[in-house]
Amino acid sequence: MTQFINRKEDLVTEAIDGVVMASGGRLARLDGYPHIRVVVRTDWDRSKVALVSGGGSGHEPAHAGFVGQGMLTAAVCGDVFASPSVDAVLAGILAVTGPAGCLLIVKNYTGDRLNFGLAAERARAFGLKVSMVIVDDDIALPDLPQARGVAGTLFVHKIAGAMAEQGADLDTLTATAQAVIEGTRSIGMSLDTCTVPGSPKENRIPQGMAELGLGIHGESGVEQIAYETAAQAMQAVAAKLARDIGPDMHVALLNNLGGASALEMSVLAYELARSELGRQLALIVGPAAMMTSLDMRGFSVSLLPLTPEFTAALQSPTPLAAWPGVHAMTPVNVVALPDGLTPIRALPSDHPQTRAFLTRCCEILIAAEADLNALDAKSGDGDTGSTLAGAARALLVAMDRLPLADQTQLYRAIGLELSQTMGGSSGVLLAIFFAAVGDASSSGLPMDSALRAGLERMQQIGGAQLGDRTMIDALEPALNALGKGLEAAAAAARKGADHTATLSRAKAGRAAYIGAGQLIGHVDPGAEAVARLFEGLCARVS
Amino acid sequence: MTQFINRKEDLVTEAIDGVVMASGGRLARLDGYPHIRVVVRTDWDRSKVALVSGGGSGHEPAHAGFVGQGMLTAAVCGDVFASPSVDAVLAGILAVTGPAGCLLIVKNYTGDRLNFGLAAERARAFGLKVSMVIVDDDIALPDLPQARGVAGTLFVHKIAGAMAEQGADLDTLTATAQAVIEGTRSIGMSLDTCTVPGSPKENRIPQGMAELGLGIHGESGVEQIAYETAAQAMQAVAAKLARDIGPDMHVALLNNLGGASALEMSVLAYELARSELGRQLALIVGPAAMMTSLDMRGFSVSLLPLTPEFTAALQSPTPLAAWPGVHAMTPVNVVALPDGLTPIRALPSDHPQTRAFLTRCCEILIAAEADLNALDAKSGDGDTGSTLAGAARALLVAMDRLPLADQTQLYRAIGLELSQTMGGSSGVLLAIFFAAVGDASSSGLPMDSALRAGLERMQQIGGAQLGDRTMIDALEPALNALGKGLEAAAAAARKGADHTATLSRAKAGRAAYIGAGQLIGHVDPGAEAVARLFEGLCARVS
Repeated sequence: MTQFINRKEDLVTEAIDGVVMASGGRLARLDGYPHIRVVVRTDWDRSKVALVSGGGSGHEPAHAGFVGQGMLTAAVCGDVFASPSVDAVLAGILAVTGPAGCLLIVKNYTGDRLNFGLAAERARAFGLKVSMVIVDDDIALPDLPQARGVAGTLFVHKIAGAMAEQGADLDTLTATAQAVIEGTRSIGMSLDTCTVPGSPKENRIPQGMAELGLGIHGESGVEQIAYETAAQAMQAVAAKLARDIGPDMHVALLNNLGGASALEMSVLAYELARSELGRQLALIVGPAAMMTSLDMRGFSVSLLPLTPEFTAALQSPTPLAAWPGVHAMTPVNVVALPDGLTPIRALPSDHPQTRAFLTRCCEILIAAEADLNALDAKSGDGDTGSTLAGAARALLVAMDRLPLADQTQLYRAIGLELSQTMGGSSGVLLAIFFAAVGDASSSGLPMDSALRAGLERMQQIGGAQLGDRTMIDALEPALNALGKGLEAAAAAARKGADHTATLSRAKAGRAAYIGAGQLIGHVDPGAEAVARLFEGLCARVS
Repeated sequence: MTQFINRKEDLVTEAIDGVVMASGGRLARLDGYPHIRVVVRTDWDRSKVALVSGGGSGHEPAHAGFVGQGMLTAAVCGDVFASPSVDAVLAGILAVTGPAGCLLIVKNYTGDRLNFGLAAERARAFGLKVSMVIVDDDIALPDLPQARGVAGTLFVHKIAGAMAEQGADLDTLTATAQAVIEGTRSIGMSLDTCTVPGSPKENRIPQGMAELGLGIHGESGVEQIAYETAAQAMQAVAAKLARDIGPDMHVALLNNLGGASALEMSVLAYELARSELGRQLALIVGPAAMMTSLDMRGFSVSLLPLTPEFTAALQSPTPLAAWPGVHAMTPVNVVALPDGLTPIRALPSDHPQTRAFLTRCCEILIAAEADLNALDAKSGDGDTGSTLAGAARALLVAMDRLPLADQTQLYRAIGLELSQTMGGSSGVLLAIFFAAVGDASSSGLPMDSALRAGLERMQQIGGAQLGDRTMIDALEPALNALGKGLEAAAAAARKGADHTATLSRAKAGRAAYIGAGQLIGHVDPGAEAVARLFEGLCARVS
């Protein structure tokens, strides 16, 4: 699969430079490219114990993303999925370690153990105090004496990081880190392999299967199981963890292995809460991508039994964006729906002239049904006439419950009727038009100004302007002319409607997708409807 | 592609519940499932202007992830890539809007405009002050009068959110949001399509091609271009943006469309800084997944010209993990390598007895080369003899530059020689052994204690215990017996080495991968080397 990289050889150095450039000056890197790739804090004064971690790249944001106040002091980055050299680790240690010493936090892989271990020896030869802890949180391979280090490493980074920032000494930090490691259990699951830069993607996991118990270097999981749902996947993970933990309350770290979508991760958080582990989870970190395996569509869950000391350190603030924070895991907070979703209907009232006027409007639109459908067939799906006539018929039926004697309430009531009976975006737009006219009218504007305010709101929401080949092309000139009487408005509407036949391109509504040439010579059906309405009303008046 | 979901129908409600549960009580959702899916702040007192946004789901963390202090007040969530209903939007508005009013932040899609627009009208009918802005930051389709709303929406959320939190009134917020929208420009690029839950994945983008100018709903990009490198991809994006912005300094928002790895996103940040836009970028938000298109392997860049007001609002703190913060975009901070990477070599000195002893050790190992290789062929790759003999030959060559007269320095010097001449993990482990012995010796321990301290360190780093079928099985008993003389040590080493032939399983080193049955009857080559060494030294002494 194609990826956003340049040369594979430059991948890690360029990525580190990207991280450093976008850190706002908080980070620097050592001048050791291409072999020594170490990211350090720029605000470090060596009076506190330095925390150095790292390992292969491909686990981002680990480890460079966790360098900063309250977490790591330096990250030593190897090639993708390969341990950094002894020299690189030594450079990291020497760059940040002062009299308080340095704690190395190493994931349990032979290469990392050896290279960090030898670098520690070399640093000690300079008289530096260096201790090292090895994280082995993976429970996927219970028979293996050397369990892998996976996302639970973040607990060590955060807890030791908070304590180091507060001035804990090296022995205390080493002992605490060791206690965190003792308590941490992790396991991962994936639906697909990851894409290693420069290598073809391995198709190891068949469709419909999931790998349970996998590491963070693309290696195979311990077993493949049939995958059914997110619920079943989380149950399988929870079952493995449940048999390996005590009765304490825990913090869970829900880690995205890189390629699961945020939507999926939220569903997995929901399922984690519902799993057999749920009642033992007091806190949660994530869901977030913290210790990834490139773009692997998978997740891992890490658990740590809580002590007051661990809780305080986990909750201690850090400005690092890669650390998603720790939150109490709570039942879903559900708030009652607000009042007002059932619209307030105005009291019905009668007013013979208004009833006659409205009825006439409806009759005009019903009479135009076939003509408007025929016009719409040229530019859309041929239903403009039926949509408007249907709304008109519904309005006739609703006439007796309308507040006909209260003009302001009437506009709003018509808007409400239209929004409930007329489908499609034109129904919503006309509902917005009438609701806004009602608003303007209630604030005391005269009728023609109120109508223009409605038009303006409809344009703001719908986005159509004059000349876009919509009903606006007739409605806007008609309303502008309305001050001069209904006949002037009708003439303006007709002129505007006819003009749409000369517009080669629709810029809003469905006709926007029609090729230009096909529209010329045909009036827009919405504009025609407006013209017919005003003309029909004149015929009645005259 | 398989995904971590349950039923497609429950995807959005379950994901929202997951977000609410993991929010530490900061969030709640309205009691309107399944149709009304609204996430609200629980710490909201309605005295400030409420900010309501939303739209289709599939863009996580937008929009629910941005609900909280300093950003949104409520998010209204539709189905995946589908607008929420008018009722859902109205419920969101009514749930959070007090006398200060409400600003709706809507991305420019017809469904969202209409449904948010009509909901606003209905809310106004209750006497609420509601205004609405429409974000149209996408420059992919310059000819379209209605540009789409994409990741630039985050600028509006953050800037209006910070000002609302500080008590700005509705008119000020609306005008500021409008000004942000006027200035914002975005464009996206992707190497692959997204996987819509419940639909087969569309294979629209051929290998080696990229789509430029795409939206966030899986729709096709404006053009397909040949994809070469991250540099060329960013150049194409930067070129589109560069011709559309003024000379001001800008903030860039580098958004992961969901499926690009963190490593790739950091490379893209690096390339953004190097692009023609680079000199106009004062601040950067991300790289991070903020407005995604499910799992699309793509990114977008959004730009906003900076004003002091925008900068202050962007920098204003928010506790939301989904907001990655804004940082100054700086050149790469490069720090000089620390002193000490070139190891300090002790001054050479001579000491005839030590020279003779060391030489004899080397000769013993060289003589054992063929035998040890043969043993290793049973359990590994047949090179233990050559590796040790090679190191011995190198040590003979190095003899004249060793500090033979200074025992403490000598151990360290031998460790250093071995780490530089002997490949593989055994070289590193022996280097660690000798370095640690030197450390212990320099702190005044007698020789046998110092040797045991070295063994302990080697075991801590290497992880092998007695009985794991390694050189430890001979070395540990030999060092324990050393107090009783060299012959006792040699006898103990031999006994320990021979015992390894009865161990059916190796637990460390390469032999751990060999089936149990194949090892029985064969002595471990590392243990054999230790036994030969002690036996050979006895022969010399006797």
